[in-house]
Amino acid sequence: MKQTSQNETRATLLVSCKDRPGLVAALAQALYTQGSNILDADQHTDPKAGQFFQRIHFDDPELAGPDRDGATRRLEATIRGIASRYEMTWKLHFQAEPTRVALFASKTDHCLYDLLLRHRSGELTCNIPLIISNHELLRPVADHFGIPFHVFPVTAETKAEVEKAEIALLEESNIDLVVMARYMQILSGDFCDHFASRVINIHHSFLPAFAGGRPYHQAFGRGVKLVGATAHYATRDLDEGPIIAQDVIPVSHSDTPEDLVRRGRDVERRVLSRAVRAHLEHRIAVYDNKTVVF
Amino acid sequence: MKQTSQNETRATLLVSCKDRPGLVAALAQALYTQGSNILDADQHTDPKAGQFFQRIHFDDPELAGPDRDGATRRLEATIRGIASRYEMTWKLHFQAEPTRVALFASKTDHCLYDLLLRHRSGELTCNIPLIISNHELLRPVADHFGIPFHVFPVTAETKAEVEKAEIALLEESNIDLVVMARYMQILSGDFCDHFASRVINIHHSFLPAFAGGRPYHQAFGRGVKLVGATAHYATRDLDEGPIIAQDVIPVSHSDTPEDLVRRGRDVERRVLSRAVRAHLEHRIAVYDNKTVVF
Amino acid sequence: MKQTSQNETRATLLVSCKDRPGLVAALAQALYTQGSNILDADQHTDPKAGQFFQRIHFDDPELAGPDRDGATRRLEATIRGIASRYEMTWKLHFQAEPTRVALFASKTDHCLYDLLLRHRSGELTCNIPLIISNHELLRPVADHFGIPFHVFPVTAETKAEVEKAEIALLEESNIDLVVMARYMQILSGDFCDHFASRVINIHHSFLPAFAGGRPYHQAFGRGVKLVGATAHYATRDLDEGPIIAQDVIPVSHSDTPEDLVRRGRDVERRVLSRAVRAHLEHRIAVYDNKTVVF
Amino acid sequence: MKQTSQNETRATLLVSCKDRPGLVAALAQALYTQGSNILDADQHTDPKAGQFFQRIHFDDPELAGPDRDGATRRLEATIRGIASRYEMTWKLHFQAEPTRVALFASKTDHCLYDLLLRHRSGELTCNIPLIISNHELLRPVADHFGIPFHVFPVTAETKAEVEKAEIALLEESNIDLVVMARYMQILSGDFCDHFASRVINIHHSFLPAFAGGRPYHQAFGRGVKLVGATAHYATRDLDEGPIIAQDVIPVSHSDTPEDLVRRGRDVERRVLSRAVRAHLEHRIAVYDNKTVVF
Repeated sequence: MKQTSQNETRATLLVSCKDRPGLVAALAQALYTQGSNILDADQHTDPKAGQFFQRIHFDDPELAGPDRDGATRRLEATIRGIASRYEMTWKLHFQAEPTRVALFASKTDHCLYDLLLRHRSGELTCNIPLIISNHELLRPVADHFGIPFHVFPVTAETKAEVEKAEIALLEESNIDLVVMARYMQILSGDFCDHFASRVINIHHSFLPAFAGGRPYHQAFGRGVKLVGATAHYATRDLDEGPIIAQDVIPVSHSDTPEDLVRRGRDVERRVLSRAVRAHLEHRIAVYDNKTVVF
Repeated sequence: MKQTSQNETRATLLVSCKDRPGLVAALAQALYTQGSNILDADQHTDPKAGQFFQRIHFDDPELAGPDRDGATRRLEATIRGIASRYEMTWKLHFQAEPTRVALFASKTDHCLYDLLLRHRSGELTCNIPLIISNHELLRPVADHFGIPFHVFPVTAETKAEVEKAEIALLEESNIDLVVMARYMQILSGDFCDHFASRVINIHHSFLPAFAGGRPYHQAFGRGVKLVGATAHYATRDLDEGPIIAQDVIPVSHSDTPEDLVRRGRDVERRVLSRAVRAHLEHRIAVYDNKTVVF
Repeated sequence: MKQTSQNETRATLLVSCKDRPGLVAALAQALYTQGSNILDADQHTDPKAGQFFQRIHFDDPELAGPDRDGATRRLEATIRGIASRYEMTWKLHFQAEPTRVALFASKTDHCLYDLLLRHRSGELTCNIPLIISNHELLRPVADHFGIPFHVFPVTAETKAEVEKAEIALLEESNIDLVVMARYMQILSGDFCDHFASRVINIHHSFLPAFAGGRPYHQAFGRGVKLVGATAHYATRDLDEGPIIAQDVIPVSHSDTPEDLVRRGRDVERRVLSRAVRAHLEHRIAVYDNKTVVF
Repeated sequence: MKQTSQNETRATLLVSCKDRPGLVAALAQALYTQGSNILDADQHTDPKAGQFFQRIHFDDPELAGPDRDGATRRLEATIRGIASRYEMTWKLHFQAEPTRVALFASKTDHCLYDLLLRHRSGELTCNIPLIISNHELLRPVADHFGIPFHVFPVTAETKAEVEKAEIALLEESNIDLVVMARYMQILSGDFCDHFASRVINIHHSFLPAFAGGRPYHQAFGRGVKLVGATAHYATRDLDEGPIIAQDVIPVSHSDTPEDLVRRGRDVERRVLSRAVRAHLEHRIAVYDNKTVVF
């Protein structure tokens, strides 16, 4: 089981702070002194905002040793020390504790299948303890993959109450990330705030073009030659959240709105899975309603 | 000189009318009876608008014969007969009479060079009798390619008058198509109407996202992951004309607005030349503020 | 049931013959006289081979009328007449009689799921009466989609015999097309001949680069910056059959051979489904070990 | 002149050595102690080869100070110290000393124009002191950009002697990089060895497919659906050198070999300029006949 034990020694650190000399050296030195080996490191400085971002993927053999808890505490203490000195915000993710993901879906199944198949093939490293839907329709998909399926019918009247129940279920299941796999309900601002930068949505257009409903029909009406999809974190401002990934496909005059819907499915699932994968690998920093995607 | 004489026998017919059975047969039969051989034919029916479009590229040996004028008249009479029967609008283009193109440019040279190089290599089949600019700066480019360069300085006060002079020059030079190769002046509605569906503009964004000025800076502000370019026919409604071609390139958080400008140049020239080529090959039909691009 | 009855009136004709004037007119006129309305027509002439190809998609109301058999016979007689005059080879496909497809798979499931999901969503218009595998592993996938699953274990000794049994099953099921959805057995030359131009294979490389086994490992070894996939008709000459569709994805030095395998799955399923769709829409003509894909 | 002086403070370090813990920390710490600020850092470890690679782009204010020579010496001494401890190979490039590039061309001008235009627009940071050709034809292009043009006619008999003269000219002009912008002569193995990893060639196919001559005609013959281009370092083994960049464009049955040549020009210039830019930004490490392109 070499592969597993190897993965258990791995962790990813995401930090951000005001830019200043010595940041890279300080973090690298601290991790080295701690006994960690840096496997991969990316950094970005926004010169206008004067903000520094770094992602460090590293290996710490003690994380798989007999005193895992002690090793974890020492590592966190080391990073806390550096972070305090440089006023960093930071997050440390241990590969031994995979992200727990809840999928939301409605009646359209292509994004749901895509995520579940990529999960099963090992392409998305996470646990998926549950799927939530406002309809019964996709239960057979959940059953096929052996994942509990929870139906929460929603009406305008019950929406606030239903969301509370959903949040309760998500919290008691220790969900870290919500992925809206073509879930056709608008989440409330409160829900988005509760899971800030932890809800990924797929909008079936190249935002900011064609925000709002029926984007393929809007695109057809305007006669564009490309249609796209945008994965973004959900925020209070609908379709205005930080963009994570985008892609497009060429279309022509011979495509009907229905053709665009059909052809768009390919780009939607590709873009959504790319965004989810980046989140699961702790590659995304959010600031200023934008993302750094390492 | 086989190649030349072969080309002189070629023509392209673009027709449009209400859809009804027998259109394809009627046109094919008429051209065959006339002695023409169809080399390539494309058609499109917009089922909602009930509109039929066809492009027929054909060979008529008599067009290179001793009585070219007579052959031309007979061909036009044949098509006029069919067109009248089916209430078609139509345009017939003879390959022996290449489109006459005027390029408009300001200070940015990448689109201008690109079009001139493609023209010289035979990729764009047209004549380019003149280049118009509101600055002296790019005269050496025109000189290098041996093309007359006309400078029309423009101010808010002189704009109407200058456009009149430009139109006069274009008309006396028998210009069929105006290509705005990053010309940084907004053409008046009157100019656009005068050359309706005969002015191609390149907008350096993926329209309708980021219409208006400084689109790369707008794109940077929104944090998008793709930037694009749109070639369209210029109309009274700025950035709202029929779209001919679009393309995008991926960008990331590490690109500054200046990087986007630099990287955008590649996609701008690619998209503009694609649109110009489609126009020169008579592949574009305009209706309903959209295009059919065969 | 308007949609269905509309589709029942549709048919697609694929013809090929030596190029000569009047072919387009003759076919269009014959179909018009017969009462058919051409919806879409594409043609291609290979000037070196002097060969003409045309695909005509048309609507014949009588095909959904009370005397469907009579209408079919009249249509075929009309086309036979033209074909005989111009020495055409031709195939006529009625939309009311969807292609019958058998999927072959082994242990890898991404192409199989992809085709089955596209079929269920209506993107691939065909019947899939059966799936054949040399392993039990993917039976649950077949069950999930409600499609009979036949296992034919293969060894070097039994191969010839097993193929005979497979051909018998395919024939008695009236299979028109075999799709090898990452089926990891090499079909014999006899099998390929039996279903000439009716077996589509996906090769996980950009042919002719990296033909043969383990192409992603070959690509890694050579340090290429793109890997691709090729869908082609299977022929006696392994990996040498007529190419239908190809696509690539960018890779980098940081991708291991295992990463290439993982990332390649996306391009494999995209390319395979594109090729299958083109076949099902009768868009492919084969000649000279190459394809025309309208 | 803030921009210039800012650039004069910048340098790029490329290192490679056997992988071991502490490398990142040691380099970062040394540069920090030296007074440098890391702007950008990328690293790669080839787990099979056990080899570590890093590119560090940094800012050292003293490099633009009154004692530039002293600052340079101190910096080099620092790096030499680390390199010696860890048995690193390393190269240090100062932005104040741009790479000196010689372009080689024959009769085809699209790659030559492309590089010269990108250079003039500031997209390629280098000096281009000379252009070498085996023909007079492209002299006007060199003149237009004000770059000395040297003609060396080559025959089979004179080739060895001519190459000696070319090498002499390149050496006395302190040329760091040779770019073969569709230069239609095969360089000798001796020439390639002399400028190892310093000659970039563009091959107009997606290597390893269609190595050798007339690749577009080979591609047409095989009926592929994509054609591509490959930029690589020239080595003794023709078309077998380390690949730097590759890209493709879709083609179809309707493209003649001449169409492929025409359409290929776009992808050739795009790929070549991408490779040259990567080299000029010191992003490329070569090992094992492959490249790491940061």
